[in-house]
Amino acid sequence: MLALHSYFRSSASYRVRIALNLKGLPYTYVPVHLLKDGGQQHSIDYKRINPAKLVPTLVDDGHAIGQSLAIMEYLDETHPEPALLPLDPLGRARVRALAQSVACEIHPLNNLRVLNYLENDLKVNEDTKATWYRHWITLGFTAIEATLVNESATGKYCHGNTPGLADCCLIPQIANSRRFDTPLDAFPTIQRIEQACLELDAFSRAAPQFQPDSI
Amino acid sequence: MLALHSYFRSSASYRVRIALNLKGLPYTYVPVHLLKDGGQQHSIDYKRINPAKLVPTLVDDGHAIGQSLAIMEYLDETHPEPALLPLDPLGRARVRALAQSVACEIHPLNNLRVLNYLENDLKVNEDTKATWYRHWITLGFTAIEATLVNESATGKYCHGNTPGLADCCLIPQIANSRRFDTPLDAFPTIQRIEQACLELDAFSRAAPQFQPDSI
Repeated sequence: MLALHSYFRSSASYRVRIALNLKGLPYTYVPVHLLKDGGQQHSIDYKRINPAKLVPTLVDDGHAIGQSLAIMEYLDETHPEPALLPLDPLGRARVRALAQSVACEIHPLNNLRVLNYLENDLKVNEDTKATWYRHWITLGFTAIEATLVNESATGKYCHGNTPGLADCCLIPQIANSRRFDTPLDAFPTIQRIEQACLELDAFSRAAPQFQPDSI
Repeated sequence: MLALHSYFRSSASYRVRIALNLKGLPYTYVPVHLLKDGGQQHSIDYKRINPAKLVPTLVDDGHAIGQSLAIMEYLDETHPEPALLPLDPLGRARVRALAQSVACEIHPLNNLRVLNYLENDLKVNEDTKATWYRHWITLGFTAIEATLVNESATGKYCHGNTPGLADCCLIPQIANSRRFDTPLDAFPTIQRIEQACLELDAFSRAAPQFQPDSI
């Protein structure tokens, strides 16, 4: 009944794959290759369910939902257990803000279409593009690391000892940072949380290399 | 009891100002000037409440919350009436996805620090910077317009006939688009919703030019 339109390497898709796994929800994987055929996200069929031509899209019983954060909140509301958000409003705000520190501050700048614009329109070379990529990750991770270190709400995971929405966003972003050789030495707490998450099957199974379209 | 650390021209701050007004919540306005003194968001005091050095920050009874979407969800949970989100999970997902189409796809690319990076690090000229700015707005608005036109859930506002979270994000983004002379002819529904919103005191009072730090 649930279908996830996903690209194996898309970190926004990766977030939702983790969330679905954490909740133990089976789903059909529908690959949308962002490079093949000039980008399958531009097809008329895909545009019909996602006018922004972005992955992921979750289709639940015929209803299409875009935007990974909206999808994860939807899953949390329709399948409350295990919860991706704590119960108290301040805790929920903290987890959402951490998730958005990735989803609104880092990832949008390193999206495929932004990298394409840098290359094709601004004519920057590969080195400058990689520097750009690492710059926004380093800036964002510096803020996230400070929050995680300074606040007692941080536990084994971003918030307490249960994985949640913030972890769903953070782990794919770390995977991206490694793809572009971003130094992570300054972020020991982020790395510790990554380690804890990757020990969970829900996270490790969601990784790009285990998706059907990764071949 | 509520204090909003805000910059008059920040569209993320503008979103929260609308939300606070819609809910009729009084708050103390604490100006954080993003240009004066080399950027007041870099001060030690501000960094303590917002390690990302971004505006806005809401402080509720000593608790600091960053990220405008997290703040608005927090306000909606702690002061449920009038609601910023509909009650049904699909409706909530739709409104959140629309809000995120602004907050995750358009605005992060046109942030002050990104424009500074384009200018100082990539050495692009003013024209190229303006083209970049308008490019991401046009791309994002094209998707939002398509969603609003195609879906019967659209009403006087983005979702039905009550202003909500999506409108809180859309209106400040339109204001930004006008500052950079972005053509909006292709977005009649977005413009119609802007008109409806600006007739409401909650929206018009939140505009940059009416903030104490706009002088």
